[in-house]
Amino acid sequence: MEIQFKSWADVAPRLVAVAAGREAADLVITGGKLVNVQTREVLDGWQVAVAEGRFAYVGPDASHCIGPDTRVIDAAGRYLIPGLCDGHMHIESGMLTPAEFAAAVIPHGTTTMFTDPHEIANVLGLRGVQMMHDEALMQPINIYTQMPSCAPSAPGLETTGFEISAEDVAEAMAWPGIIGLGEMMNFPGVINGDPQMLAEMAATMNAGKTVGGHYASPDKGVAFSAYVAGGAADDHEGTAEADALARVRNGMKSMMRLGSAWYDVESQITAVTEKGLDPRNFILCTDDCMAGTLVNDGHMNRVVRHAIDCGCDPLIALQMATINTATHFGLERELGSIAPGRRADVILTSDLKTLPIEHVIARGQTVATDGKITVDCPHYDWPDDARATVRMGKVLSADDFGITAPEGANKVTAKVIGVVENQAPTEALTAELPVVDGLVSGEGDTYQIALVERHRGTGQVTNGFVSGFGYTGKMAMASTVAHDSHHMIVVGTDRAMMAAAANRLGAVGGGITVWKDGAEIALVKLPIAGLMSDSPAIDVAAQADRMVQAMAECGCTLNNAYMQHSLLALVVIPSLRISDLGLVDVDKFEITELFEENA
Amino acid sequence: MEIQFKSWADVAPRLVAVAAGREAADLVITGGKLVNVQTREVLDGWQVAVAEGRFAYVGPDASHCIGPDTRVIDAAGRYLIPGLCDGHMHIESGMLTPAEFAAAVIPHGTTTMFTDPHEIANVLGLRGVQMMHDEALMQPINIYTQMPSCAPSAPGLETTGFEISAEDVAEAMAWPGIIGLGEMMNFPGVINGDPQMLAEMAATMNAGKTVGGHYASPDKGVAFSAYVAGGAADDHEGTAEADALARVRNGMKSMMRLGSAWYDVESQITAVTEKGLDPRNFILCTDDCMAGTLVNDGHMNRVVRHAIDCGCDPLIALQMATINTATHFGLERELGSIAPGRRADVILTSDLKTLPIEHVIARGQTVATDGKITVDCPHYDWPDDARATVRMGKVLSADDFGITAPEGANKVTAKVIGVVENQAPTEALTAELPVVDGLVSGEGDTYQIALVERHRGTGQVTNGFVSGFGYTGKMAMASTVAHDSHHMIVVGTDRAMMAAAANRLGAVGGGITVWKDGAEIALVKLPIAGLMSDSPAIDVAAQADRMVQAMAECGCTLNNAYMQHSLLALVVIPSLRISDLGLVDVDKFEITELFEENA
Repeated sequence: MEIQFKSWADVAPRLVAVAAGREAADLVITGGKLVNVQTREVLDGWQVAVAEGRFAYVGPDASHCIGPDTRVIDAAGRYLIPGLCDGHMHIESGMLTPAEFAAAVIPHGTTTMFTDPHEIANVLGLRGVQMMHDEALMQPINIYTQMPSCAPSAPGLETTGFEISAEDVAEAMAWPGIIGLGEMMNFPGVINGDPQMLAEMAATMNAGKTVGGHYASPDKGVAFSAYVAGGAADDHEGTAEADALARVRNGMKSMMRLGSAWYDVESQITAVTEKGLDPRNFILCTDDCMAGTLVNDGHMNRVVRHAIDCGCDPLIALQMATINTATHFGLERELGSIAPGRRADVILTSDLKTLPIEHVIARGQTVATDGKITVDCPHYDWPDDARATVRMGKVLSADDFGITAPEGANKVTAKVIGVVENQAPTEALTAELPVVDGLVSGEGDTYQIALVERHRGTGQVTNGFVSGFGYTGKMAMASTVAHDSHHMIVVGTDRAMMAAAANRLGAVGGGITVWKDGAEIALVKLPIAGLMSDSPAIDVAAQADRMVQAMAECGCTLNNAYMQHSLLALVVIPSLRISDLGLVDVDKFEITELFEENA
Repeated sequence: MEIQFKSWADVAPRLVAVAAGREAADLVITGGKLVNVQTREVLDGWQVAVAEGRFAYVGPDASHCIGPDTRVIDAAGRYLIPGLCDGHMHIESGMLTPAEFAAAVIPHGTTTMFTDPHEIANVLGLRGVQMMHDEALMQPINIYTQMPSCAPSAPGLETTGFEISAEDVAEAMAWPGIIGLGEMMNFPGVINGDPQMLAEMAATMNAGKTVGGHYASPDKGVAFSAYVAGGAADDHEGTAEADALARVRNGMKSMMRLGSAWYDVESQITAVTEKGLDPRNFILCTDDCMAGTLVNDGHMNRVVRHAIDCGCDPLIALQMATINTATHFGLERELGSIAPGRRADVILTSDLKTLPIEHVIARGQTVATDGKITVDCPHYDWPDDARATVRMGKVLSADDFGITAPEGANKVTAKVIGVVENQAPTEALTAELPVVDGLVSGEGDTYQIALVERHRGTGQVTNGFVSGFGYTGKMAMASTVAHDSHHMIVVGTDRAMMAAAANRLGAVGGGITVWKDGAEIALVKLPIAGLMSDSPAIDVAAQADRMVQAMAECGCTLNNAYMQHSLLALVVIPSLRISDLGLVDVDKFEITELFEENA
């Protein structure tokens, strides 16, 4: 299934012959200004010759490499910069398959991504990771896979479709596209010496690969030090300059992210621009990008531009998205710079500050010009079971969403998940709610939330209350993107419509649906694992735009509240969440009762 | 035989427990100023805690790591710098075994060396490399082995004791202490696509290891580009700023050396200090250090000091001897910085410019204080055949050194190897020499040189002429250090004494001997492979000093002419040399006649 790219060693005889002038190059680029991220300088007039998809010659004059069949590109005074690398990201966040994600980012100059298919791991386990890995290797750009480390992310508080074991990690380390371990999110586990977490990191380190970190706590004291001692080599969870300082001073790489909803570059890059630290340990990444961001705003070019806008020297910003990233993953001799032997991933741009991506070459092949992709991004043959992951077990009805009141009560005090605009954490609220026909009823801005089990077809529905979206009238919204275990989250003001929305996702195989007054008003189809579409990004972005608009039509007043919706089951982020095992008090890391005791 | 140091993964549970304060550290250092080569800054008051020979905690306060049995060192305001790394060197150049070399350099703060046992490979082949590798792994510091790539260095122009094949290289890549391929000296071979050279580099690259370079030509045009395309990742043969620029701009590491006779830092470091290039790709090394240098002047501390004297920022100079080196060899998470998980190799010094080496810790153990070693450097049990490598085949006599004149000639014009003070290249001279009793005789400053075969006991002697040392009177000097094939070089004004000197080395198993007026006046015993002593450096240095003094007593007027003597058979450096196959015209890479044709 995978397409293996020949190694430098494999093609060295040809590269030597081309550099020596005995054989003709496949491609020569003349007339440009070469941005050398190895030395951090611009070399005016330097030319490159490419053979077998790798740089054979880099220097002032490649004319001896040109034969009758050599393609010659005149850069016309533009800069040659290395293809951009995304140091850490989740393809599933774009609601796109690897192929369609690649197709969306190639015109933006991204030629290398380090991807953690953590979401699909929760749905399809190691086999899902393998499918993502295999499609990644089919692409014309370099997509490396970080083996997911934490599925479930909160053992005991949720049930995933599949779990990832230390044995799975050890097995995956031998796969050709596995570059390391995905973000070790279970930082309390590491700090407390959890044997499984340490075994996963040991398997990775013993394979000579890179352990990704995720230390999502502001505590930079003893807990942080204990986490670092475990072996995580990078971290993208820093949000303040002090976070970046702590990480690089402890030998970690500070990954600074600009995703669709993450803005962590500006607050941390001052470690370089103002504190003057050696920039080699800083890496740019996106972590999570929605399809709309890719369609409208860009990808790593957006991040590099932003870093420059934050005052970073353009050459240093480029190093943070090229050679620093490559070096971190042990790929400095493979990619990330325009130098002999490396993969010929190069962008032509007429300005180093605004960074227009005018011509993208990956492995010596033109893959995009002027924002248009010029190559095919092959699709993996996703098997039927990867497209049939929404197992409802039965047709749900309004009754499944009824919340029975304590015997004889006509009012109850219930715990309510409080959604906060533009923030991932929720508030743990309470509300006094009326009882109607023996069932507790939402009221005002408090409505029902349900977690519908969808991996094993148990038909189980966990019910609770949520507030803060602003929904009015009769509506429901359901999503099989439901971090991290990706069951189905249903929010609604009407039980029958909640059942209809849930059944609809069961019928289409997953996605996001919004219902109003008895009819569906928006649908994002995500047939693969209930997480991804294999349609082009532009179509998925349009569906997602329509979905957000539909939420507004239902009364939602929050910015980008789809994200809040999809995170309502993320039982590792405070304070109150819902899982298939019940309502979760994340502050105490325990299941909690829906009703206050003295109701 | 080897001592394996536990990996970070192996000891991560303990490191986490210590960093978290649940278990006590083995060692804590307080009261210092930590030089952070990751960030290039000094962190006043930062403390470290060490367990299992690795840093467990690095931060402002390690008090939670101190238990009743923890050793606490008060740095008393001194700097903590990482142990120094030598990026490329040949242990045999010190005429010392790895153990004795380590004992000599540990007090100078060297805690890591990347060593190419190229000399012993010529004498004992892969087995000799294995012995060096095994003794290296027994030491209390980190000695990595670069698998020699070129034995013989000039196929067809000399016969070595053993040859290194591509299969040998592939086999060695699986040994625990092999870090890469030793300097690929056969640069014409690489440029011309020599299959064996490319196979050796491919075996190294496919093992994920580092290919050492050696491009000893001033030509930075097409030939250089072709060499780089072959895969060499570093080069220490640069001697000018332009050499350094060419290397780093092509993605190679510029290794700048200061050896006993190499002075290539000052001329190249301007690429950083004046041109302002990113310093990450510059590495300091020694290449070749004589025992006397180690005893009297230092080792990597001497090189770092020198770089600072050349105007380099002390923190950048330290990076060039620590983290840059570690990163190049894929060991950034293993050593080269004071950061969690790394080997606890650390030096206490009271001044960052003059760099006094006051306390050296390797793997958490104090190995030297105030210039005195405090640990044992274990000796390998060198087998008898490694101590009996000087196979003369017969007792030589004056007759073996007779150079028969062409029939009837009473004068001949002979080619003469012209030694040049302080330079490795020789001149190709001619001299008109008298014939006495049918034998050509030296005259004035021209005397005889002989290459005595000593690997296979053939009794073969190749005779020629050499000039430039200044020898007078009756003398002879013989050495089994005879780069690169290490037969025996004998130079003398008297044939009987040449025979006596050669026989003497046969009797003692190798070394260097100087004879004057019929008696031996100096002897350096090098019983192991005829190259190394397992005596302490101070003794070997004293013997070597005496040897150089004896050369002067024989009339030698050149500085450090032992080096010129030992290089007279180095058939890869211009212009005229001698090998077991005859006189070698290195400019033409061919065997040449001793007498001019129209003599």
